[in-house]
Amino acid sequence: MAKGLLFVVSAPAGCGKDTILNELFKRTDTAGYAVSATTRAPREGEVNGVHYHFLTREEFERRIAEKEVLEYTEYCGNYYGTLRKSVDDLLSQGRDAILKIEVEGAMNIRRQFPESCLVFILPPSWEVLEQRLRNRGTETEEKIIERTKQARTELGFAKNYDYLIVNDDLGVAVSDLEAVLRAEKLRRSRGDELLNSFGGNA
Amino acid sequence: MAKGLLFVVSAPAGCGKDTILNELFKRTDTAGYAVSATTRAPREGEVNGVHYHFLTREEFERRIAEKEVLEYTEYCGNYYGTLRKSVDDLLSQGRDAILKIEVEGAMNIRRQFPESCLVFILPPSWEVLEQRLRNRGTETEEKIIERTKQARTELGFAKNYDYLIVNDDLGVAVSDLEAVLRAEKLRRSRGDELLNSFGGNA
Repeated sequence: MAKGLLFVVSAPAGCGKDTILNELFKRTDTAGYAVSATTRAPREGEVNGVHYHFLTREEFERRIAEKEVLEYTEYCGNYYGTLRKSVDDLLSQGRDAILKIEVEGAMNIRRQFPESCLVFILPPSWEVLEQRLRNRGTETEEKIIERTKQARTELGFAKNYDYLIVNDDLGVAVSDLEAVLRAEKLRRSRGDELLNSFGGNA
Repeated sequence: MAKGLLFVVSAPAGCGKDTILNELFKRTDTAGYAVSATTRAPREGEVNGVHYHFLTREEFERRIAEKEVLEYTEYCGNYYGTLRKSVDDLLSQGRDAILKIEVEGAMNIRRQFPESCLVFILPPSWEVLEQRLRNRGTETEEKIIERTKQARTELGFAKNYDYLIVNDDLGVAVSDLEAVLRAEKLRRSRGDELLNSFGGNA
């Protein structure tokens, strides 16, 4: 059984990372979503353990103290983070663990797990990204400008990622991500065990 | 249009690289086989420009002198090599060029084209490889031992390749190679132009 790997997927808002990941999980079950934990209250329809692990502030802080949180951030007075157990559970099943986290969290994961694989999803262009944010129809002009500015900051981190996927056509982007998951396991840098199985010569 | 890349595929005899490549080319036309050149006489059924570019010794040497041969070797009194034009023709169509060459030639290509991508195909085990060579029924025991020894030498180069694919199940191996071709284009190291298109910040 091929060992599962730890993948991080990041993208600015409006790049469609949720849609891409939802499609991916429809196509394959060799990878699973490592559900984030948060102290914010569940929104309508959100299910504990599916959308987030909803924790109290005390519980979250206890887990931080016990080094059970791989990375976390505080945003608008709430903690958001990744529990070690979410990742370990997937890897121990031989599946890939996919973390959907923002750029600072991704850099944190990279420092702790140099063998993790980081994927950044890009919009086709700034113009398309702005258009997509506008089309949601839920954001004020001010909010759109703020999100676009935020996207520019996040894109500054893309150079530190391992793979860049442009989400122009959804089906293509999902197939790109599938190919990345598959090919990354075949990289020579992950093949020491395989070569050793052929003896000292290899 | 994504630029075509130069891929090298190597494998010891009996690992099924011809079968894998034939299947690959049935599935995709974004990659093409960069046909090798040789001075040996065509065998029955071999077509000039398809199986090999058949050249006279004088012609081959003229091309070497004119730096039109990317890599070559002499084997049993005949030249075998890769013409620059075979590769350029594919790349200029925006397709990937796939070279099927042995390990020394591959190392040569890597030196000249550091951005090339090298794929090594492995048998599931030494036992399976020997069995496959035996099953051909065309080789003497002596020849099988010689080929196995040769395979061990070649496998010693696998550590210098970028990807390792085990040919256990043919369909899986072809899909692995397809994923490698696709994912390799998405690697951040090949994405400077893409990031630049988002401006200085990226």
